[in-house]
Amino acid sequence: MEFNLNEEQHAFQDAARRFAEKELFPFASEWDAQKIFPREAITRAGELGFCGIYTRENSGGLGLSRLDAAIIFEELAAACPSTTAYITIHNMVSWMIDEFGKDTIRKELCPKLASGRLLGSYCLTEPGSGSDAAALKTTAVKKGNKYIINGTKAFISGAGESDILIVMARTGESGANGISAFIVPAQTKGISFGEKEKKLGWNTQPTRFVFLDHVEVDEDFLLGELGEGFKIALKGLDGGRINIGTCSVGAAQGAISLAQKYMHERRQFGKSLAQFQALQFKMADMATELVAARQMIHLAAFKLDSKDPNATTYCAMAKRLATDMCFNICNEALQILGGYGCTQDFPVERLMRDARVHQIVEGTNEIMKLVISRKILEEGATVQIR
Amino acid sequence: MEFNLNEEQHAFQDAARRFAEKELFPFASEWDAQKIFPREAITRAGELGFCGIYTRENSGGLGLSRLDAAIIFEELAAACPSTTAYITIHNMVSWMIDEFGKDTIRKELCPKLASGRLLGSYCLTEPGSGSDAAALKTTAVKKGNKYIINGTKAFISGAGESDILIVMARTGESGANGISAFIVPAQTKGISFGEKEKKLGWNTQPTRFVFLDHVEVDEDFLLGELGEGFKIALKGLDGGRINIGTCSVGAAQGAISLAQKYMHERRQFGKSLAQFQALQFKMADMATELVAARQMIHLAAFKLDSKDPNATTYCAMAKRLATDMCFNICNEALQILGGYGCTQDFPVERLMRDARVHQIVEGTNEIMKLVISRKILEEGATVQIR
Amino acid sequence: MEFNLNEEQHAFQDAARRFAEKELFPFASEWDAQKIFPREAITRAGELGFCGIYTRENSGGLGLSRLDAAIIFEELAAACPSTTAYITIHNMVSWMIDEFGKDTIRKELCPKLASGRLLGSYCLTEPGSGSDAAALKTTAVKKGNKYIINGTKAFISGAGESDILIVMARTGESGANGISAFIVPAQTKGISFGEKEKKLGWNTQPTRFVFLDHVEVDEDFLLGELGEGFKIALKGLDGGRINIGTCSVGAAQGAISLAQKYMHERRQFGKSLAQFQALQFKMADMATELVAARQMIHLAAFKLDSKDPNATTYCAMAKRLATDMCFNICNEALQILGGYGCTQDFPVERLMRDARVHQIVEGTNEIMKLVISRKILEEGATVQIR
Amino acid sequence: MEFNLNEEQHAFQDAARRFAEKELFPFASEWDAQKIFPREAITRAGELGFCGIYTRENSGGLGLSRLDAAIIFEELAAACPSTTAYITIHNMVSWMIDEFGKDTIRKELCPKLASGRLLGSYCLTEPGSGSDAAALKTTAVKKGNKYIINGTKAFISGAGESDILIVMARTGESGANGISAFIVPAQTKGISFGEKEKKLGWNTQPTRFVFLDHVEVDEDFLLGELGEGFKIALKGLDGGRINIGTCSVGAAQGAISLAQKYMHERRQFGKSLAQFQALQFKMADMATELVAARQMIHLAAFKLDSKDPNATTYCAMAKRLATDMCFNICNEALQILGGYGCTQDFPVERLMRDARVHQIVEGTNEIMKLVISRKILEEGATVQIR
Repeated sequence: MEFNLNEEQHAFQDAARRFAEKELFPFASEWDAQKIFPREAITRAGELGFCGIYTRENSGGLGLSRLDAAIIFEELAAACPSTTAYITIHNMVSWMIDEFGKDTIRKELCPKLASGRLLGSYCLTEPGSGSDAAALKTTAVKKGNKYIINGTKAFISGAGESDILIVMARTGESGANGISAFIVPAQTKGISFGEKEKKLGWNTQPTRFVFLDHVEVDEDFLLGELGEGFKIALKGLDGGRINIGTCSVGAAQGAISLAQKYMHERRQFGKSLAQFQALQFKMADMATELVAARQMIHLAAFKLDSKDPNATTYCAMAKRLATDMCFNICNEALQILGGYGCTQDFPVERLMRDARVHQIVEGTNEIMKLVISRKILEEGATVQIR
Repeated sequence: MEFNLNEEQHAFQDAARRFAEKELFPFASEWDAQKIFPREAITRAGELGFCGIYTRENSGGLGLSRLDAAIIFEELAAACPSTTAYITIHNMVSWMIDEFGKDTIRKELCPKLASGRLLGSYCLTEPGSGSDAAALKTTAVKKGNKYIINGTKAFISGAGESDILIVMARTGESGANGISAFIVPAQTKGISFGEKEKKLGWNTQPTRFVFLDHVEVDEDFLLGELGEGFKIALKGLDGGRINIGTCSVGAAQGAISLAQKYMHERRQFGKSLAQFQALQFKMADMATELVAARQMIHLAAFKLDSKDPNATTYCAMAKRLATDMCFNICNEALQILGGYGCTQDFPVERLMRDARVHQIVEGTNEIMKLVISRKILEEGATVQIR
Repeated sequence: MEFNLNEEQHAFQDAARRFAEKELFPFASEWDAQKIFPREAITRAGELGFCGIYTRENSGGLGLSRLDAAIIFEELAAACPSTTAYITIHNMVSWMIDEFGKDTIRKELCPKLASGRLLGSYCLTEPGSGSDAAALKTTAVKKGNKYIINGTKAFISGAGESDILIVMARTGESGANGISAFIVPAQTKGISFGEKEKKLGWNTQPTRFVFLDHVEVDEDFLLGELGEGFKIALKGLDGGRINIGTCSVGAAQGAISLAQKYMHERRQFGKSLAQFQALQFKMADMATELVAARQMIHLAAFKLDSKDPNATTYCAMAKRLATDMCFNICNEALQILGGYGCTQDFPVERLMRDARVHQIVEGTNEIMKLVISRKILEEGATVQIR
Repeated sequence: MEFNLNEEQHAFQDAARRFAEKELFPFASEWDAQKIFPREAITRAGELGFCGIYTRENSGGLGLSRLDAAIIFEELAAACPSTTAYITIHNMVSWMIDEFGKDTIRKELCPKLASGRLLGSYCLTEPGSGSDAAALKTTAVKKGNKYIINGTKAFISGAGESDILIVMARTGESGANGISAFIVPAQTKGISFGEKEKKLGWNTQPTRFVFLDHVEVDEDFLLGELGEGFKIALKGLDGGRINIGTCSVGAAQGAISLAQKYMHERRQFGKSLAQFQALQFKMADMATELVAARQMIHLAAFKLDSKDPNATTYCAMAKRLATDMCFNICNEALQILGGYGCTQDFPVERLMRDARVHQIVEGTNEIMKLVISRKILEEGATVQIR
């Protein structure tokens, strides 16, 4: 075992941190307050390769691992979890097209996606199917060499701003096996968008309904094989869960750093807050949980990178634990800042609101427990959780 | 012992609930989103007596107990914790003037305050003294039959909208014994207000700095005796803590009601959420904690009403437990609503944000633990916590 | 509402406390270590009326309420939760015979039970039916004016030492409606007992299997009507759950008292433990939770006494919350005592072990959540948890 | 980064597991119940090298890393945490003599210790100095080429059974810098032992006071330099904390395995427990926390092995988190087993009792928080917890 970052990882971490401190942190609170989608900043992140981190190099990406990506995303998220979370979704889209797209499409789209010139959205959830994603009702019907897509997608990150949608639609039987995945350019005729959702967090990325009304796409825009859509979606989700967990780790890191600073500066009863034992102990617990959450993310990313047969379980564990612990860390940091923590003059409440979203998206933490327990309680499993 | 509401309490509870459902709930989310201070609604609450619940009847109030007030406030808070929290602060101001004001002033102001025609603010906190309130630096210097007040107050609820300020200022030595309390009309020359704070919660009430620059008040505007200000402030805080705790109980009640409804309506995997055991158990815990939190509030209010020597300890316990538990309840309710819980289409996230504030205001929960532990660990105490 | 004890309650509380301090506490650790059933001490408790607290006066009991009983049991449990828990079970047996027994039997047995000259056991659980109590398999078949009982009962408190068993047996259809309750003298032919269980806690009361092999009882020994057994069992359980919760409150009170004392005596780093803020805060939380747990018990007892239609829900809430919180309190007290807390020289670890059992017996806390959630999520319920 | 075990680690893991299943598990409950110190089993563990895992090979040890040791100890602890915890203490003694002992002594003692023919005890704690270990009062006074040791040691694992004591004693000024470490053969004149402590857990290892009354040791028995004793003690503790954390991970693994099995076997309400969602989710959380706890231990062991400057912080974090989480896991497993979990027929309650001890020994978890917060809150630290 080896727990230290290698040189390349250190270099990417440093680059990401500098970018985050210069291009994200100074603006993030304003983007949040004004609900601004920072497209330019995202494109600049793309110039560093952060829009296609695990897209292959010959598709214009960095060709790095999920673990590398986690290291980079954590740094970005310490400044702005909301923007970073969108970037991770976009990375998933880049990767999906790179991995499952037809060659011509891949060569056309991936370099633009990986460099942040085109942005992507992932359209799985529908109003009636959230946790039960496989119950989706959007249909895609073959007509000549086209597919005609009809349906409604809900809670779509980036919708209305992004250029490329990946849409899961039913092409066959009910259930998971009748679903296929399609690349759908956002400007295609028949696509319209709902109002921007008003939300607790993730305010730097628009969330909208996507309405698909007789939307035609060429059969080449099918990802993978017919009926493989849900399998592709789930593969995406493994990585997506690591990414969301990473965004929480970043948020927690950001919140702890602010609390550290505040504890030294703020004085009450003639002492700095850093001198109060109850707050010291709280801080010790926060730091310990941060390290534990990060470890779980790194472990899961490693398992995914190494195609471990239990990778899905590890990803679910990492998402569950990291998003729960890191929300608590942000929330405790807010408590340390007291009245100031409740104001938007300090970004802690923003980090907390963004982190709160992560316990729900990319599979609620209840769904994570379902995924984990299924494995642990497999009939006949001798399972040691090792 | 007797744990049931009496008839009068039932009647007030019903009246408050009807008012809340009609006058607060339908508008609260909009007030929150637009940061609107609903002065008219508050005045209408005043018409029902809710702006002077424990102000004496001959001062224009309802002359009820703290326990009665808790029952009323809970109902209001189930609709809008933020507005209700302001109303409770206003009630504290009404009561303070009724209890400690000179007769002429009391007769002049209390009927207007108790009926909601005048609104009040409580000015204790300063930028450098939050938890350590007795370190306040605002001064009041006698000059003839006037006091000249100079200083800055921070995080003042209602500031900029309210008419009457109660200002704690130093008239003598450093520490708690050198502080006096003054009634200061908000329009007095020398008073100015800071920008409206941008906040996580409590968005229906403005929070501002109050700057006092050579503000003159007549000596009759002194509350109680010279040097008694901090004692008065603390007396106010006992009740204030029950009130804030009650607002959290109301928020939790509101959130549970929404979650109940959602669990019956929302279907996933072919079943309503109400049929999933893990969610049933979560709901059972939420309901149990709600009942426990409410009991603690009622107990503390009773102890305050009956002038129990340990009332301060009970109030601190009630505030700590109720605000912590009820934030968790709101937060779990949000989780039950999943993606929808993160949107402002459902008021759960609003209830959660408001409840979050309560763990900090009116003495942070850390200060509550200080207050409680001092009693429990009094040297020589045989203390049974009974 | 009225939260104070009345004079009579104070008197009983004092009597119970004195008894506990003199007759239980000095011996409890030895009883625990040596697994001794303190029959004599229980009989002395009976002399004070504590073996028939809510048995009617004309049946030899004190004729008090459940609330009164909770006040008494808490005092006893602060000294020895295990012995007290047995006494509460015995009280349930006394009450059941008083409430549901034929007059002749009642007059014969109740005075002896209420005075502690005879001891009782409650035989519901079977090896295969714990949480699912209604699935019990023991049968009672009518033969002339006798019932012949066959079956095996598990985890029976007092078995092997007690004189009177109440046995739930199937007299009809499967499920809850086919069950009847019988009084069975422990010496009846056909009854034998298993080995004394080796247990984590509750070591001052024997727990054994009870084997019933063609045990004959007269039809007069039927409690209530044929087929009412499960209803009777459940009625007993409401009170039983309050009692177990009370035993936890007592254990927690005992543990906090020990921790208080230790914190003043133990010095580390030149200070008493009472001067360390992190421990002060821990103590504040423990005390707060103790008060909350006690309130829930009192509320539930009141609801049961006043035949509130939701009494069952309140009893389940009280049992769940009090046993969970009070285990944590005992466990934290143990932590405060550090290495000494792990030794049997201090009774904290004993209180913790006994309190641990309470989260499982008289309906596991999971079953409590089932009971609560059923009510909260009743289809069509407008349920406000008030 | 690389999170998988290498081949050698797999081999040692397998060997340890087989040994644990064959030589420890079948007897552990009996050892616990009868308070038997399984000296023979420990010696057999020594034959496999497990009594000197990180003692150098030329001193008779396996010369492995702390990480390797953690992997081995976890397997042993899944069967018997108490015996394993003693073995880890013994390993610390072996290592200390190997690392700091004079060559002649080292060559004489280490091979015997590493093979389990001699057993060791670590004598730091005194009745008045637990958390504040540096306040110890035992003295060692030079007299010719001897040291005369006087004092009392408390809570000494293995005392009365072990052969070699490492004794920390004051040779100079008060505080940490006046302490030296000595090897003291247990049979030396002047040494006597207290009664075996009666304890909550760790019942397979005797814990006793050690009284040292004019105990003479040769100056060669000094470990390291004069005055370095506390530094040596702390170095030992870093590893000791990993070891104790590992024993908790093992206990949790053992408890989860039992709960898994039970959930498939036990049926209630016509279903196996494995089919109840609330229990599935509980199990998912237990498994997730187990993985997180293990990761923290591995991380800390790696940091210690690689002499990371923050190793002490990581060790404290790992000990705190692993022992807290794993106690909870054991405790939840007990809850899953219900009434059976409270009996000694199932080893879950034993695992829980042993795991409870770990939150206190080798530095209480409160001391861990002190150690961690000191680092996190170092004045001027830019500390990112990475």
